[in-house]
Amino acid sequence: MEKKKNAVEVCFSPKLFPDIITNENYIVVISDILRATTSMCVAFEHGVKEIIPVAGLDEIKRMKEDGYLIAAERDGQALDFADFGNSAFNFMTPVVKDKTIAYSTTNGTQAIEMAAKTADGVVIGSFINLDAVVDYLFEQDKNVVILCSGWKNRFSLEDAFYAGALIDRLMLNDDFSMDCDASTAALDLWHTGQEDIHYYIEKAEHRNRLKRLGQDDVIELTFSLNISRVVPVLVEGKLIDISKSI
Amino acid sequence: MEKKKNAVEVCFSPKLFPDIITNENYIVVISDILRATTSMCVAFEHGVKEIIPVAGLDEIKRMKEDGYLIAAERDGQALDFADFGNSAFNFMTPVVKDKTIAYSTTNGTQAIEMAAKTADGVVIGSFINLDAVVDYLFEQDKNVVILCSGWKNRFSLEDAFYAGALIDRLMLNDDFSMDCDASTAALDLWHTGQEDIHYYIEKAEHRNRLKRLGQDDVIELTFSLNISRVVPVLVEGKLIDISKSI
Repeated sequence: MEKKKNAVEVCFSPKLFPDIITNENYIVVISDILRATTSMCVAFEHGVKEIIPVAGLDEIKRMKEDGYLIAAERDGQALDFADFGNSAFNFMTPVVKDKTIAYSTTNGTQAIEMAAKTADGVVIGSFINLDAVVDYLFEQDKNVVILCSGWKNRFSLEDAFYAGALIDRLMLNDDFSMDCDASTAALDLWHTGQEDIHYYIEKAEHRNRLKRLGQDDVIELTFSLNISRVVPVLVEGKLIDISKSI
Repeated sequence: MEKKKNAVEVCFSPKLFPDIITNENYIVVISDILRATTSMCVAFEHGVKEIIPVAGLDEIKRMKEDGYLIAAERDGQALDFADFGNSAFNFMTPVVKDKTIAYSTTNGTQAIEMAAKTADGVVIGSFINLDAVVDYLFEQDKNVVILCSGWKNRFSLEDAFYAGALIDRLMLNDDFSMDCDASTAALDLWHTGQEDIHYYIEKAEHRNRLKRLGQDDVIELTFSLNISRVVPVLVEGKLIDISKSI
C-alpha cells in the first residue's frame, strides 16, 4: 500500500487557525517574517540559550521583575521596560550568549502560544533559516501547517511569501502534498516574487509601516536566504535551537 | 486639496471581516464564485424579481412553509425541501421570472448577512457581471471591501482570484487605491492566472470538490467574463437588480 503523503497547509491568519483541515500529527511552522521569527533566528545564531515566548504583557512584566532578559514590542515599537526590541540587530551582541530571553510581540508570540496547544511540534521559520527548517521537516515526516502571524489578524504579504518559499522546497519531496487553496496561493505569490525578492517585498504593508517608524534597516538581512542553520523548536514552553543536537 | 482616494480592501474569509481596516463609507462586494454569487447573477439575468439571502436553515424552512420559492444548499448539495439547488443551471428557466426566491448556501449567504450589518451597501460580484459591478462602484465613489466567502472560513482560490480581477479594473480609475496586503496578493494571483483562467482554476480545491460531486458543469459559465450586466444590490434585506433602473 502506498504511504499516505504528509499534507502541507497554510493558514493566513491566527484567527483562521481553529479552522484548519489538518487535525492530527502536525508540526506548525510560525511565519512572522517582519520581524519576530527572523529576530529569534538571529538571536539563536548569536548563542542565545532559550527564548520563552510570552503572549501577554502582564506576564512579561512579571518576568522582568523575576530577573529575565526581556524582548518586548507592540505596534512595531520596543516597550520601555524591555532590554531588547524586536529588531534582529538588537540580538547581534555577545550579551545574549547562553542567556534566556522572555519575548513578547504584537503578533508572533500569540501565534506560537495558539499553535502549541494542538500541534505535535512548533518550529520558528524565516528566510534566513529556510533550508534548515525544510531539512528538519523532512526528518520529522509529519503533516505541516504554516501559520502566518499576519498583522492584527490581517493577511501579511511577507508571511505568505515565506510560506510559498517553504512549500516550493517541501514539494521537492514526494512524501509531501499540497491540497489547500491557501498553499496554492502562497506558492503562486512566491513564484511571482522569487526572482527579485527585495523588489517584490517593497509592496508589503508592514515593510512600509517599518519604514515610517525608521525601522526598516533589517529588510536586507530579513530577505537573505539561508544565512543560518538554526532550528528553533518549542520544548516545554521554551524555544531552543535543536540544530546543535542534530 | 487633493481628494482622498477610495480604499480597496480584500478580506479572505468572513471570519476576518471584523478586522478590516476600512471603517466607514464602504460598499462590500460579495465574492462566492463557486457558486452562490454566480448563480444569483444568472437568476437575475433570467428575470428573478428579488432574492432574499437567508443565512440559517431554520429560517429558510419557515419561508418554505410561507410559500416562498426556495434555493438551498449545504456542502455543495441541494437540500431536499428546496425548489432549486445552488447551480446556475437551476435558474435558467422561465419559472423564476418575476418571482421572489429565498436563498441559503454554505458560505455566501452568511457573508451577505454579516456585511449588511456595517456596510453602506452590498453588491453581488461574479466573473459574469465583472464590468457591470466595476461601473457601479465607479458611480458610487465609496471605499470598497471585497469579501471572499471562502469555504467554511478557509481561503478559497476562486474567490480571491475574482477579487484580483475586480481590483485590476478598479485600479484603472485614479480615485481608487489599494493599500492592504490582501489586495496586493489577490491582484498578483489574478495576474498569474488571467492569461488562461480555466487552466488556472483547475487548481482550486472547491472546483475539485464539485467535480467529485458531479457538479462541475457550471465551470465554463462561471469563468465567462462579462456575459451579464446585472448589478444585484441589497435593499432592505432583499437583493434586487438595480441595472434595470440605471
